[in-house]
Amino acid sequence: MRSEKNVSPKLLVVLLFLPAITVSAVAQADPWPLMPMPAHLQQGAGQFIVNSSFTLGFEGYREPRLDSAAARFLQRLSRQTGIPLPTAPSDSHAKFVIRCRQASAKIQEVGEDESYRLEITPSDVKLEAPNPLGIIHGLHTFLQLVQIGPQGFAAPSLIIEDRPRFPWRGLLIDVARHFQPMETLKRNLDAMEAVKLNVLHWHLSEDQGFRVESKSLPKLQERSSDGLYYTQAEVKELIEYARDRGIRIVPEFDMPGHTTSWFAAYPEIASLPGPYQIERKWGIFDPAMDPTQDRTYELVDKFIREMAKLFPDAYFHIGGDEVNGKQWDANPKIQEFMRSHGLKSNEELQAYFSRHLQEIVRKHGKIMVGWDEILDPALPKEAVIQSWRGQDSLADAARRGYRGILSNGYYLDLMYSAASHYLTDPLAAGAATLAPEEKARILGGEACMWSELVTPENIDGRIWPRAAAVAERLWSPAELRDLDSMYARLHAVDDNLQWVGVLDRSNRALMLQRLTGSADIKPLQVLLEVLEPVKRYTRTGTGNYNSSTP
Amino acid sequence: MRSEKNVSPKLLVVLLFLPAITVSAVAQADPWPLMPMPAHLQQGAGQFIVNSSFTLGFEGYREPRLDSAAARFLQRLSRQTGIPLPTAPSDSHAKFVIRCRQASAKIQEVGEDESYRLEITPSDVKLEAPNPLGIIHGLHTFLQLVQIGPQGFAAPSLIIEDRPRFPWRGLLIDVARHFQPMETLKRNLDAMEAVKLNVLHWHLSEDQGFRVESKSLPKLQERSSDGLYYTQAEVKELIEYARDRGIRIVPEFDMPGHTTSWFAAYPEIASLPGPYQIERKWGIFDPAMDPTQDRTYELVDKFIREMAKLFPDAYFHIGGDEVNGKQWDANPKIQEFMRSHGLKSNEELQAYFSRHLQEIVRKHGKIMVGWDEILDPALPKEAVIQSWRGQDSLADAARRGYRGILSNGYYLDLMYSAASHYLTDPLAAGAATLAPEEKARILGGEACMWSELVTPENIDGRIWPRAAAVAERLWSPAELRDLDSMYARLHAVDDNLQWVGVLDRSNRALMLQRLTGSADIKPLQVLLEVLEPVKRYTRTGTGNYNSSTP
Repeated sequence: MRSEKNVSPKLLVVLLFLPAITVSAVAQADPWPLMPMPAHLQQGAGQFIVNSSFTLGFEGYREPRLDSAAARFLQRLSRQTGIPLPTAPSDSHAKFVIRCRQASAKIQEVGEDESYRLEITPSDVKLEAPNPLGIIHGLHTFLQLVQIGPQGFAAPSLIIEDRPRFPWRGLLIDVARHFQPMETLKRNLDAMEAVKLNVLHWHLSEDQGFRVESKSLPKLQERSSDGLYYTQAEVKELIEYARDRGIRIVPEFDMPGHTTSWFAAYPEIASLPGPYQIERKWGIFDPAMDPTQDRTYELVDKFIREMAKLFPDAYFHIGGDEVNGKQWDANPKIQEFMRSHGLKSNEELQAYFSRHLQEIVRKHGKIMVGWDEILDPALPKEAVIQSWRGQDSLADAARRGYRGILSNGYYLDLMYSAASHYLTDPLAAGAATLAPEEKARILGGEACMWSELVTPENIDGRIWPRAAAVAERLWSPAELRDLDSMYARLHAVDDNLQWVGVLDRSNRALMLQRLTGSADIKPLQVLLEVLEPVKRYTRTGTGNYNSSTP
Repeated sequence: MRSEKNVSPKLLVVLLFLPAITVSAVAQADPWPLMPMPAHLQQGAGQFIVNSSFTLGFEGYREPRLDSAAARFLQRLSRQTGIPLPTAPSDSHAKFVIRCRQASAKIQEVGEDESYRLEITPSDVKLEAPNPLGIIHGLHTFLQLVQIGPQGFAAPSLIIEDRPRFPWRGLLIDVARHFQPMETLKRNLDAMEAVKLNVLHWHLSEDQGFRVESKSLPKLQERSSDGLYYTQAEVKELIEYARDRGIRIVPEFDMPGHTTSWFAAYPEIASLPGPYQIERKWGIFDPAMDPTQDRTYELVDKFIREMAKLFPDAYFHIGGDEVNGKQWDANPKIQEFMRSHGLKSNEELQAYFSRHLQEIVRKHGKIMVGWDEILDPALPKEAVIQSWRGQDSLADAARRGYRGILSNGYYLDLMYSAASHYLTDPLAAGAATLAPEEKARILGGEACMWSELVTPENIDGRIWPRAAAVAERLWSPAELRDLDSMYARLHAVDDNLQWVGVLDRSNRALMLQRLTGSADIKPLQVLLEVLEPVKRYTRTGTGNYNSSTP
């Protein structure tokens, strides 16, 4: 795989005379150890050696977030190379100079400029960006480029001019089916930063658990979390941690279905009396909020008021998926309400709920995001549709004026190959025929780590390195579709992610050791390499797993 | 190595009819996956299967520390086996019953009863101890016994009656030459707990740095730590963490030599004017406190007053080693003082200092510990001598009425084999001829991790698994000296330590990956297996290393 990297001197000469090499040509001739691939990359001659005389300095705008990014960069570079480096930026004549023009938005926004320019020559490195977001991205491009070779650690001479294709590049982590501790989330945020993902979609409530501390409705965490929830101090800490890494956090509280954990605390807002207990197994359950009662909206309003303050992001995800309507059918008062209000189907009843919810979300200063099911002619155009159904559904929404995010094709829990995720493009299939202004409404996509079958031990191996292929699809030019190049670079980026602290490889080795006891794990590793994982919902469908099993 | 484990059925029958098998016989016939080996072990028939119906309960005395130990035990057992287990003790009919008789001392004492009795039958497990210390030890014996086999995870039927041979079983970690972050110390405390070590000797000051926050003398951390020090809140947190694991923390502040970091902050207590800067390299440096001035004792008194409150342990280590006397020789006022006080040598001057220091330590309610050099006829008998010189020096102190701890032979930084540490016995050589009451003064020993050549990345691999061999020497019966058995069990305990969270293996793999880049590390691993590390002070002697290099 890596032998392609040795470009012949003759070819190199030819390449040097080209004004700029297009990405796809480079990617095929030479798998750079980069993921996502930059928008523009022009190869130079020679390389920049990283040794103990390496120094980093700032010119122009400076802020604490940049200092923190620089300190983390120096620490990472030192860890990756084993070379002791200064722990803080130097004042002058640095070999690696960061030039940032101005501050980014106080609260990170969708569509902020994330571009950067990285110029590496044998004598020095210059990294420029309009704001700290681009600087953060450029630092990680450099870290990926540093590789060991005959002269020690070095990065090749080149000029990169880079910017993302889509502004919304997310990873959903479901912490409801299996709770994930803070340190698990932090190391995954570190990895997201390394591959330029910029949204953590934090799926915080489900039939199986309520995972955030509410001060206004404390029974939510008291009765519905088994003690496994994030305190508000932890939420703030994680938001700050993410912001430092150029990552927004969008919380999701799924309504009106997937809400058994709400009802175990507040049964009065359910469509049938209960009593309720949080679910331990998987599936689409019947309980749904009662959209016909004022007290439902009052309680939800109280909750969203509190959460809208806790989470600074402009977007607020209310779920909205997979309501089977059985509780609505079974409640005569709800049936009567539907008749008297001219609601002809459960879909119309859910649309009624969504419109009310949207008003609440808007009242508290947020823009509502929801899954495909919230789409309804009366829904204001500012709402954003996240599609688990696919590009056709997304295109339909875009034609009607809504912005959208693709997740269909990016479900990491279904155990499909990196190639299948990589070849899924938000602007393909039904979206390919959209007009340019409609295409612009497709904000990007999100890889989804639903957690029915993941624990803190195996979640890194489920997310990484495959989420890096999704990150490239959402960042890099659409033409980049070469699978050999992608897999070569995926391997390189996974090498790099070990230094970031991702535990995919080390935990896999431990899990194999668990099975072999004191025997060598090598034969089992070989067996594993020729096996394919069971795909789709086959394992969850067995009913053998619950919220305490992996 | 592990094939010896299959005892033939015939032999098993014979063994079953023996009333109790002596440890050494068992160890040679069957390398149990235990380290340290218990004092008494009687094998039973069959095994106790660990499956998802495992429950743990309490009878008798209960306290928060026991609950915390039980919760950590359940988590560890679950991690080690991959079997989901309840996260809290159950109320009745548990399969694993803990029976603790009473509380241990509020502040853990030297010589407290650490015994326990563990009885494993195919149907249940009973763990009994006089106090929580024994319970903590017994839980870890059980965890080591759980191994995978044809019936899944199981522990063999047996009865263990166990108690330590020595009451002081320590690990010294030098955090001055290379600072070690809290998480490094915590995972090493976890590992110490697993092998029943009960003292962390925290070497906190050196020529190269002062590593603890002082509120009364804040220049110590401000000028002499490069910002690498523990806050008092962190110190308290670590003491609590250690106490939860049955481990005392003894701080060491080395005086009157190894004190350049004091002088970079407070040059007025040095024997020559200065100015001083913390050292970056290694060796025995000239600076020493001026033992002839009142202000030296006033400042030290102020500092010890503060630290005696911060560290609850009864013992307080003042170092006292390796004063070369050059600064004393070079200061005419000190020479004049010696003449006028009848002090004939630098040794006598140091003894003068030690006596004053001992009074200060005692005044603040602590018992002084120091290295061999503090021994002097005028030193009160309550002082404890830690010997880097060896058993003869220790025996000499014991004959004169002092208690002692052996560290000679246990220096992990010198890269000797586990076998060499294992065969070093505190009561051998000069100590073998001591009378019983003199032998009783030998409290135990401490493995020493001097940190000239260790960083947070490689320190686990330097300490583990070799420190486990020292732990066995200090806990298990003296007769246990079979190296084949020790090495087989050392391998097993290192397997087990991976579940504890020790990073010796995973960091080694990462460090090899750093060297090979994207190539397979296997060939390098094979090479490494046939190489011996450079021993003694050969590497430090090159002068190529400093406090920022590994």
